[in-house]
Amino acid sequence: MSVQRFPHGDPYEGTGLPELGFRNYWYPVLAAWRLGRKPKALKVLGEDVVVFRDHGKVYALAERCPHRGARLSQGQCLYPGSGTISCPYHGWTFSGDTGRCVAKLMEGPDASASREIAVKSYPVRVLRGAVWVFVGDIEAPPLEDEVPEVLKATEDWHGFATWRTYRCNWRIMKDNLCHDMHAPFVHRNSPELKFQPVFPFASRLAAFPLEGGNGIGYVARDGVPSADYPGLGPFPPKRERWYRFLKPTGRGKEIDAKSAAVQKYGVKYRQSSLMPGATFIGRPNGNYYVLRWVTPIDEHSNFYYSWSLFRRQGWWRTLREKLFWIFWVSWVHDWLFSDQDKRLLEAVIPGSEIYSRTDAGVIAWRRYAVEHARERAAAAEKRSAEAAAE
Amino acid sequence: MSVQRFPHGDPYEGTGLPELGFRNYWYPVLAAWRLGRKPKALKVLGEDVVVFRDHGKVYALAERCPHRGARLSQGQCLYPGSGTISCPYHGWTFSGDTGRCVAKLMEGPDASASREIAVKSYPVRVLRGAVWVFVGDIEAPPLEDEVPEVLKATEDWHGFATWRTYRCNWRIMKDNLCHDMHAPFVHRNSPELKFQPVFPFASRLAAFPLEGGNGIGYVARDGVPSADYPGLGPFPPKRERWYRFLKPTGRGKEIDAKSAAVQKYGVKYRQSSLMPGATFIGRPNGNYYVLRWVTPIDEHSNFYYSWSLFRRQGWWRTLREKLFWIFWVSWVHDWLFSDQDKRLLEAVIPGSEIYSRTDAGVIAWRRYAVEHARERAAAAEKRSAEAAAE
Amino acid sequence: MSVQRFPHGDPYEGTGLPELGFRNYWYPVLAAWRLGRKPKALKVLGEDVVVFRDHGKVYALAERCPHRGARLSQGQCLYPGSGTISCPYHGWTFSGDTGRCVAKLMEGPDASASREIAVKSYPVRVLRGAVWVFVGDIEAPPLEDEVPEVLKATEDWHGFATWRTYRCNWRIMKDNLCHDMHAPFVHRNSPELKFQPVFPFASRLAAFPLEGGNGIGYVARDGVPSADYPGLGPFPPKRERWYRFLKPTGRGKEIDAKSAAVQKYGVKYRQSSLMPGATFIGRPNGNYYVLRWVTPIDEHSNFYYSWSLFRRQGWWRTLREKLFWIFWVSWVHDWLFSDQDKRLLEAVIPGSEIYSRTDAGVIAWRRYAVEHARERAAAAEKRSAEAAAE
Repeated sequence: MSVQRFPHGDPYEGTGLPELGFRNYWYPVLAAWRLGRKPKALKVLGEDVVVFRDHGKVYALAERCPHRGARLSQGQCLYPGSGTISCPYHGWTFSGDTGRCVAKLMEGPDASASREIAVKSYPVRVLRGAVWVFVGDIEAPPLEDEVPEVLKATEDWHGFATWRTYRCNWRIMKDNLCHDMHAPFVHRNSPELKFQPVFPFASRLAAFPLEGGNGIGYVARDGVPSADYPGLGPFPPKRERWYRFLKPTGRGKEIDAKSAAVQKYGVKYRQSSLMPGATFIGRPNGNYYVLRWVTPIDEHSNFYYSWSLFRRQGWWRTLREKLFWIFWVSWVHDWLFSDQDKRLLEAVIPGSEIYSRTDAGVIAWRRYAVEHARERAAAAEKRSAEAAAE
Repeated sequence: MSVQRFPHGDPYEGTGLPELGFRNYWYPVLAAWRLGRKPKALKVLGEDVVVFRDHGKVYALAERCPHRGARLSQGQCLYPGSGTISCPYHGWTFSGDTGRCVAKLMEGPDASASREIAVKSYPVRVLRGAVWVFVGDIEAPPLEDEVPEVLKATEDWHGFATWRTYRCNWRIMKDNLCHDMHAPFVHRNSPELKFQPVFPFASRLAAFPLEGGNGIGYVARDGVPSADYPGLGPFPPKRERWYRFLKPTGRGKEIDAKSAAVQKYGVKYRQSSLMPGATFIGRPNGNYYVLRWVTPIDEHSNFYYSWSLFRRQGWWRTLREKLFWIFWVSWVHDWLFSDQDKRLLEAVIPGSEIYSRTDAGVIAWRRYAVEHARERAAAAEKRSAEAAAE
Repeated sequence: MSVQRFPHGDPYEGTGLPELGFRNYWYPVLAAWRLGRKPKALKVLGEDVVVFRDHGKVYALAERCPHRGARLSQGQCLYPGSGTISCPYHGWTFSGDTGRCVAKLMEGPDASASREIAVKSYPVRVLRGAVWVFVGDIEAPPLEDEVPEVLKATEDWHGFATWRTYRCNWRIMKDNLCHDMHAPFVHRNSPELKFQPVFPFASRLAAFPLEGGNGIGYVARDGVPSADYPGLGPFPPKRERWYRFLKPTGRGKEIDAKSAAVQKYGVKYRQSSLMPGATFIGRPNGNYYVLRWVTPIDEHSNFYYSWSLFRRQGWWRTLREKLFWIFWVSWVHDWLFSDQDKRLLEAVIPGSEIYSRTDAGVIAWRRYAVEHARERAAAAEKRSAEAAAE
C-alpha cells in the first residue's frame, strides 16, 4: 500500500502553488553570525545545500559530493583563501564560486579531467544579517531588486531579526499571512493584545497589485471591533470584554490616504504579500515595518525569517526602540504571539477547503503568485533551450 | 518502492474483518471524568473526532474544520449553554448536536449560507463512566440495546473501569480474547495465578450463538491442568509445579448447568464475544462480570476499555469488593496480568497463520462477526439509496 | 505517492550487489558470551531470527511462530536439554535442530500432525567467540572453509573482537573497506595517527584474485605521503605538518615480496576483500591481522564484527599484546578511529556516483563479488530443481 499523503484531499491541487516553493527566487536561510568556521548543512526547497565561509566570504554548494555521496558539510575549507571546500571522504575539493572540482586530493595533483566534475553552485549573499540563497535554474537577479527598500537601507533603518522552523508546509504558513482576519480571533488574548479591543474584523477585503510588480497589497474596510451573533451572543464574548480597557495600538490600524506612511513615504498598504512568499507589514506612521519571509525547507517544514525594522530618528530614539524590541517585541510578539499561530498551523489537517469572504486575501495571493511566478518563465526558457539544442 | 505492509502475508485477508473495525456500532472512547472544559481530540476507527462538554452535555464532531483544516479540539465552547464549539483559526462555530456551522465569527453575523456547511456529527452517550461514540453511516440504535444488562443496571451492579492503548491492530487484540487457551500458558506465572494450578487446557472448545443475537458464547470441556509430552516432559514443567499449592479461584472455572450463573441468572457462558469486538467474562456464581471492549484507533493501535462489575449485595460486601478491586484486581490483574498480553501482542509479526484446535474460538468469532456485522447491511442500504437517487 | 528511496539514483543499480547482502554465506551475528538464558531476537539479511542456547549448545530458528505470529524470542527453552524453544503465546514448541514443531503444549500431547509444521532452521556455529549463522537456501558448507586460517587457529593466535551497528546499507560500509585511499584523508588526524606522516596516497591500485578463490587482494604502489596542488597548496596542509614527527607504524605499510608475511607465512596482500563482505588486513611482519565482517541487518543498517588477531609468541609477549589491545587499540582504533568512518558513512546520501582512480578497489570488489557469489549458483540450482519437479 502506498502512503496516502492527503486522505482529506490536497487543498493546493489545482492552485499551481508548488509544494516545495517557487524556484528562481532568493530566500533567507540562516543568520550570518551563526555561520562560523564549520560548514553548515541546510535544506532549501527540498535541496540539500552546504553553506560555508572562507576569509569572510560566504559560499553555497550542493551538499552531496558526486564522487561517493558523502556530505560536504562534514568537510572543511582546507586551503583558507581559496574559497574551496574539501569532501570529508577522499578530499575532492570544490570551488565555492563555480562548484567545479579543482582537486582530488587522494588521487594526486595529476588527476585527470577533474575540472569537468562539478556540484551545483548557488548564488549566495549576506544582507541585513541573513545569508540568502538563490534556488533555481536561471541567472539570479540582484537580491537588492527583490527586497523592500527598508531592508537594504541600513543607514536609514535599524532592526532585529528572529527565525523559527515551522513543521508544516510553507503554503499553510503563507496562507496565515494573507490578512485573512485570523488575527482578531487567534491572538485576541495574547499578552500583547489582551487589554486592547480586538482588531477590526468582518471587513471587506480587497487586494491590489503593487506598483513595483512584485506582489499585492491588502485593503480592509468597514471592519468592526465587535458584533452580535443571533443565538450565541456577542463577539468578543462578554467575559472577554471587561479587561479590554487600553486603546488600540498601531498594530491593528489600517493605513489610509492621510497616514504619514502614504503622505510622506508613499507606502500605500498596511500589509502586502511579496513574491516568493514574503509578507510586509507597516504602520500608518511609516516608521516601523515588519518583513517576514517564508523559506520552504521540504514538504513538511519551512523556515520563517522575520525582521522588525525601525526608521532611524536619532540615537536616543534608536536606543529606546532597541530596548523596546529586546524587552518587549522579541518575546511578547516574536515568541508568544507567533506561538499561537505555530501551534495551530502545525496541527492543521490538510484537505479540501471551503473558502469564505475572509479568505479573499488568501485567494488573491495564490492567484497572483502562480500567475507571476518566475518559475513558469524559467521552465519555458528551459524547454525552448532544449528544443534549440536538438 | 511502496511500503510493504505485510511481508509475511495478511492474516486477515479473506476473513472480511475490516482493518479499522466494524462500522455502525457504539464504542467507548474515553473515561467521562477525563473530559473537562478542554475539548479532546480522539481517533476512532481511523476518524479524527473532537469530544467536548458544554453545560454537562457531551458532544462529538469531526475534528477537522472544513474551512481551512484547523483542529476543532484546539478551539473552545465560546458560548456556554449553546452546545457549540468554535474553530481556533477564524471562529467558525459548529453546533454540537447537528454539526452545522451556525456562525463564522470573523466574517460577521450576516455571513451568508453558513448553515449549509457542516461537519460530521457523531451520536454520543455517557454510560457507566465512559463516553461512547457511534461510528457509522446509519442511524444509531440505542446504546442500551447493545451492551450487557450488568453494564446498564448501575443500581444492581457496582464496578470500576481501566483502559489502555495497545500498539497493535484491534484484530490481533480481539483474537487474544476468544478463549484460545493462551491464558493457561501466558499467565501461568503472573502474580495473580502463580500459586494456583494452571487453568485447564487442551479442552474441546465449542462456540454457540447467543440468544440475544449479538455474539457467541464459548464452552470448553475436558480440559486438563497438566499433561505429559513425549520426549519433553510434563506441562507445567516440574520446576513450575511445587509452588502451585493454592486452590484454583473462580477465574479459571467453566460455567456448567448447575452454576448459580445459569440457575439464578440465566447467563449460560463463562466467556462470550459480543459485536463489535467486546468480550464478556463471568463467574459461575453469577456475581462478578468483566466486560472488555476493543475500540480500534487506527491500523496500528486500539483502545481497550475494561470494566469489572460486582453484583450489589449490601454495603458491607460492596465496600469489601471495592477495596479488593483497588488493592488487588487493579494492579495484579488489570495491570500486571494484562501486561503479559500487551508485551506479546504488540510484538506479533502479522502474517499467514496456521490454525489449530485451540483456535476454534478465534475462527468462530471471525466467522460470526463478519456474517452478522451491521456494516454489510449499511453498505447495501447505501448502495440502494444511491441507485434510487440516480 | 510512493516513498522515493533513491532521489539521487541508486548507486548499486546494475552492479548486481544485493541490497540485503549475499545469501548462502556464514555471518557473525552476536558475541557468544552475550547469549545467556534468554533467547535473543536478531535481524540478519532482512530475516528475523531467534538465537537461543540450551545446555551450552546454540540454536537459530526463524523468529516468527507460524501459528499466530508471536515472537519465539519472547519464549523460552521450557525443557532444558531438549534443544527446543516454546512460543510464548500457546506453547508451540520447536526443535532447535530441525525447526519442526514437536508439541503444541496448550493443545495436549495428542495434537495431530504437529510434526509437519516447522519454522526455518538456520545452521549455526560458535567460532572465535562469535555466534555465526548461515543465511541461505542451500546446504551450508563448513564454516571453517570460509574464514581465514588465523581466525580458526586459536592455539596459534590470540585476539579480541569488537562490534557495532552502523546505520547505513552494508554496501556503503563494505565500499569503505576496499582500500580506496580514504584512510590517509579521513583518519589523518585521529589520535592514533595524528603524529605520524599520513598514509601514502595517490597510489596505483591493483586487485588480484586470491589463490583460495574466496576474494581479491589489493596492491597499492607508488604512493606518496604528500603532494602539491596548484592553486591550493600542499596536502597535508602546512598547518597539519609540523606535529607529524613520529615514524609511520606498520598500519600504513604495504606488504612487499621481502616482507615476513610473504617470506615466512605466504600472505601476499596487505589488504584483501573476502566473500561475502569481509576485509582482511595484515602487517608486513605477519604477526598481526585484522578481520572485519560486514553482516547486513536490513536495508538501512549493518552489523560490523571486527577481530584483532595476534600470533602467539610466548606468554610475556601475549600479555603485552593483550594490554596493548585493551589500553590502546580498543578505544583509539576500534572506537575513535572507526567513529570517523561511522559518522561519515551514516550520513552518505546514496545516489549516482562518479568513479575515479582511487575507486579501483571498490569496482574490483563489486565485480568479483557479483561474479563469484554463491547466490547465483543457488538460484540456478533452485530453478533446475523446480523444473525437474514439474
